[in-house]
Amino acid sequence: MTTPSRRDLANAIRFLAIDAVQAANSGHPGMPMGMADIAEVLWNDYLRHNPANPDWFNRDHFVLSNGHGSMLQYALLHLSGYDLPIEELKNFRQLHSKTPGHPENFMTPGIETTTGPLGQGFANSVGMALAEKLLSQRFNKPDFSIVDSRTWVFMGDGCLMEGISHEAASLAGTWGLHKLVAFWDDNKISIDGNTDGWFTDDTPKRFEAYGWNVIRGVDGHDAEKIKAAIEQALKSTDKPTLICCRTTIGFGSPNKAGKESSHGAALGKDEVAATRAALNWNYGEFEIPQAIYDGWRKRDHAGEEKAWNKLFDAYAKQFPELAAELTRRSRGQLPDGFVKAADEYIAKLQADGPTIASRKASQMAIETFAPLLPELIGGSADLAHSNLTLWKGSKSVATDDPNANYVYYGVREFGMTAISNGLGLHECFIPFDATFLVFSDYARNAVRMSALMGSHAIHVYTHDSIGLGEDGPTHQPIEHIASLRYIPHNDVWRPCDAVESAACWKAAILRNDGPSCLIFSRQNLAHQQRSAQQVADIERGGYVLKDSVGAPELIIIATGSEVGLAMDAAKQLGDQVRVVSMPSTTVFDRQDPAYRESVLPKACRKRVAIEAGVTDFWRKYVGLDGAVIGIDEFGASAPAEQLFPYFGFTVEKVVEAARSL
Amino acid sequence: MTTPSRRDLANAIRFLAIDAVQAANSGHPGMPMGMADIAEVLWNDYLRHNPANPDWFNRDHFVLSNGHGSMLQYALLHLSGYDLPIEELKNFRQLHSKTPGHPENFMTPGIETTTGPLGQGFANSVGMALAEKLLSQRFNKPDFSIVDSRTWVFMGDGCLMEGISHEAASLAGTWGLHKLVAFWDDNKISIDGNTDGWFTDDTPKRFEAYGWNVIRGVDGHDAEKIKAAIEQALKSTDKPTLICCRTTIGFGSPNKAGKESSHGAALGKDEVAATRAALNWNYGEFEIPQAIYDGWRKRDHAGEEKAWNKLFDAYAKQFPELAAELTRRSRGQLPDGFVKAADEYIAKLQADGPTIASRKASQMAIETFAPLLPELIGGSADLAHSNLTLWKGSKSVATDDPNANYVYYGVREFGMTAISNGLGLHECFIPFDATFLVFSDYARNAVRMSALMGSHAIHVYTHDSIGLGEDGPTHQPIEHIASLRYIPHNDVWRPCDAVESAACWKAAILRNDGPSCLIFSRQNLAHQQRSAQQVADIERGGYVLKDSVGAPELIIIATGSEVGLAMDAAKQLGDQVRVVSMPSTTVFDRQDPAYRESVLPKACRKRVAIEAGVTDFWRKYVGLDGAVIGIDEFGASAPAEQLFPYFGFTVEKVVEAARSL
Repeated sequence: MTTPSRRDLANAIRFLAIDAVQAANSGHPGMPMGMADIAEVLWNDYLRHNPANPDWFNRDHFVLSNGHGSMLQYALLHLSGYDLPIEELKNFRQLHSKTPGHPENFMTPGIETTTGPLGQGFANSVGMALAEKLLSQRFNKPDFSIVDSRTWVFMGDGCLMEGISHEAASLAGTWGLHKLVAFWDDNKISIDGNTDGWFTDDTPKRFEAYGWNVIRGVDGHDAEKIKAAIEQALKSTDKPTLICCRTTIGFGSPNKAGKESSHGAALGKDEVAATRAALNWNYGEFEIPQAIYDGWRKRDHAGEEKAWNKLFDAYAKQFPELAAELTRRSRGQLPDGFVKAADEYIAKLQADGPTIASRKASQMAIETFAPLLPELIGGSADLAHSNLTLWKGSKSVATDDPNANYVYYGVREFGMTAISNGLGLHECFIPFDATFLVFSDYARNAVRMSALMGSHAIHVYTHDSIGLGEDGPTHQPIEHIASLRYIPHNDVWRPCDAVESAACWKAAILRNDGPSCLIFSRQNLAHQQRSAQQVADIERGGYVLKDSVGAPELIIIATGSEVGLAMDAAKQLGDQVRVVSMPSTTVFDRQDPAYRESVLPKACRKRVAIEAGVTDFWRKYVGLDGAVIGIDEFGASAPAEQLFPYFGFTVEKVVEAARSL
Repeated sequence: MTTPSRRDLANAIRFLAIDAVQAANSGHPGMPMGMADIAEVLWNDYLRHNPANPDWFNRDHFVLSNGHGSMLQYALLHLSGYDLPIEELKNFRQLHSKTPGHPENFMTPGIETTTGPLGQGFANSVGMALAEKLLSQRFNKPDFSIVDSRTWVFMGDGCLMEGISHEAASLAGTWGLHKLVAFWDDNKISIDGNTDGWFTDDTPKRFEAYGWNVIRGVDGHDAEKIKAAIEQALKSTDKPTLICCRTTIGFGSPNKAGKESSHGAALGKDEVAATRAALNWNYGEFEIPQAIYDGWRKRDHAGEEKAWNKLFDAYAKQFPELAAELTRRSRGQLPDGFVKAADEYIAKLQADGPTIASRKASQMAIETFAPLLPELIGGSADLAHSNLTLWKGSKSVATDDPNANYVYYGVREFGMTAISNGLGLHECFIPFDATFLVFSDYARNAVRMSALMGSHAIHVYTHDSIGLGEDGPTHQPIEHIASLRYIPHNDVWRPCDAVESAACWKAAILRNDGPSCLIFSRQNLAHQQRSAQQVADIERGGYVLKDSVGAPELIIIATGSEVGLAMDAAKQLGDQVRVVSMPSTTVFDRQDPAYRESVLPKACRKRVAIEAGVTDFWRKYVGLDGAVIGIDEFGASAPAEQLFPYFGFTVEKVVEAARSL
């Protein structure tokens, strides 16, 4: 091979994908074969990145929203020189390989976000493009475009059918994210076959309706046409761009191209051979000629980063404070003094002792912490005045204000949360999002993805129980708190008063390797007395709020609005009763055994748990011998003051349950 | 008052809403005030219904997707003569009233579906319109349009922002549901204020992109313009219609009209008085003059039903079999002999003993039961060949085949499930929907709504664990089974072999007052031996699959793919071990205490639970003293055969756990 053609370069992607899927006998060859030509042009001619330093701050972000085509991305990373050797590709989809079935940001260098659950990668990319916009507003100065990167996203028909694509595209249009470029892999095939039977949208028209710049009818196998489309996208100054690429799934396969049979299974030995012949690819399995590698590694990426570093050095001289902030944030470090300030605030709250709704306490915590944290960016899904997410310094991200930090997400819980994940994957931001707890359902898989990806996203859920009152069972969470706790690596907090509310905000801000769900009440919650040690122990997730005289004969465990009830019941039950406040079971379960034993001694089996949610969850703490006061049916529409006694949340019932043990 | 004007009739809605919200000091007056004129025209001039018989088969369906405006619907029901006396309106949002905060189909006559979670009512209405289309294809004959009803849906900006509106609108367009008419309450206000900052879609253009008939710019306060738009909608023969109505939220309120302050709170005493003056409404609280009632009750609805009954009698003479089927289905009755046939099939499976994937067993059950059940209609979110939902008689609902019964939903899990709910609320259908278990997350609130509404929907979830293998953690459910079980009134089944798979399909078909989630494996599951009594006991949710000699010293409880593991471990552990197969904890928990004690005797505290999902759930059966073999972290991408031992699902680990007790 002399100088490889663009098609040769693209074919290297194709055959790495074909061979890896064949070796694993599992995977999705069709998409990489279909999008290889687009990817080749984008990565070789446009994508700003440095394979030697995947974390270069000013890199472009590339997102594969149709993540089943993971071999496309692994091939790109390998060919362009990332630390992903050919052995990893040979181990595609094997235990402990860096090439799992879908791209995972925590497994593989150069992967920005974890994709596969369709549509979410696209929404993550909107979050990333929003991050770029906000950073450029805050940090760029004349002659110093130090934040100057793009977000490129590949998406398939599946992503476009998903509702989240609507939510994310609508917001991207509203915000005018002109540095976001999406490539639609318009191959007219989804898993069930030709999409004519179930996907008849006029997608270009739809995206125009969102205010996007739409480039129609691009031949996704013609490098020049692809280049021309990208050039046109680069010219957009106020709109995100959708490039509609007509492609053939399984391109090059004589018998499977254009068919769903190429989508999700190995081509088979014979068809692999036939495809090699058809594309004139005369190399062995996983064999990439040096000329192909050379073709993929022509650009001086390190030099591009070096030039940026030089620019940044000059910027730092002229704007030392901004540069210091950007450096700090890009390292994911909190400002000096944040923890001290937070602790002082929490101590002051403990002394002041306000009896307020925990959603109000949440707003006070935001009001206190946000001025210290320019990285804190948040918003609500059209419930700002219910979730209480606005604070004095809130400025809409739809503006070009350098301090823009508030997101009016509209009624788009799933899109909001996935956008939040995109922001949270960016070291420079700590995002929060908010809705009613019951509507965490709408966003549930994005919450899961926060946890899987380790996104530093904070999910604020208010109106946490039947305490929501008159809106009724459609709006009253029952199973939600327990269900959120079951998502691995997800921290869930349900504080009992203003002090715990502030403490859980602090914990969520400090937790930089995963998400936190902060669950707040609509109604007022009584302040609880605590010693300094008790205040400090809040961050352990569970602690003794009122101890027994001597070893406890009975332990009452409660969270949130039910802690006050537990305290009242304990008074009636006498001195031998201990009350444990358990704002976060997930955090408590991570404490060392000695601490857990000190709070819940094994010897005490008389245990009562109280929480205005499903009871079964609490069996892990009270066992078969204990009692749980909770609610295992849907709520009802009525004033909250009536609902709590109606569903059995009374001192009498707690006392009765305790005495029955 | 002499003859009331149309505006007077509409004002009756407005003031019932205003007064009810004021009395409750809670609720949403703005939307009823804004949409009253539209509702008045629709209900008085077009809606086919009979207030004296809300269940009339050939009625139109009216859906209030923006369900927070519930007082609009209660006012309409009351004014037009449903069994909803004024006392109920005075008790708006009070415990046990028939006027809860959001419309609930199980509380109030004339309410077709429960709404409030935005966008879902719209998707329900697509399901209802699909039901009408399919019934008309199957049952109508020349001169006998016995199925001839429309679906009308009100929706607000919130519904349109939600992603589910995209999924549902896209399918309605693809299916050409021309008897579906949606009214968009285009008032430019959502909870956070003027929507300019977060809702800039060109909605008419967007719906045209879905293939809808769009009627733009209708003055929602001009009865003649509304009538003209509806007339135009009625002419559509191949497309659903969106009528874009410009309205003023809180219409009539001098100080709150057009503002978000009218949206979600009582207007306040002074403003109520000011609105009375402004609209010249000289009546007291909840006072409706007789002339207004007369104006609302002019049409001879009973006569319309009578005429239809006559038509149906003639139809029954000419097409007795079809009429019998329609009558049977409209009563929600299964065909004679279904249970017997199902039991025979299950007995045969027990005798045959196939070792197959439970998803395959599910397909065999569909193949066996569907020919007996023309009411069974189902589909998958673009995973037909993975979920195994197609059977020999499958015919796409996109056709006009009289036997159309298969829905190619595309990649739209949430829309699918809410459409399924709409179908399931129709007595004539038993819908199923299907996706990978992990993507039940995308549909989660619709599953909840199935349970809350008592929709007879069957949710089929395959690829139920790490057994999914190479696709990796994004696709491997961990917390899902437990989380689905926590939804009140939701039945969850995870069968262990082909026999239990068929039995759970039978149970789901028989359960006509709520949903069932059927959870199936990707991989093969070993057949289990059972006596006839054991086969019969499957429907109790849990039963002794292998008993101990004498009282059990140890009980192993398992579900699905882990039952085989439990049986293998039991062999090594000896004769004193009982194995309980627990395909449905939700059903088991409903059994009488004596039966539950017979399966899980309190005296035996040595208990081990095994399930390839979160462990904490099982503490309700094994307590603090038992052991749980499960998985509390995310899975990994690798072949399933490697993942099970990697995550500790081995005979050795089970034996070790059992011996450690």
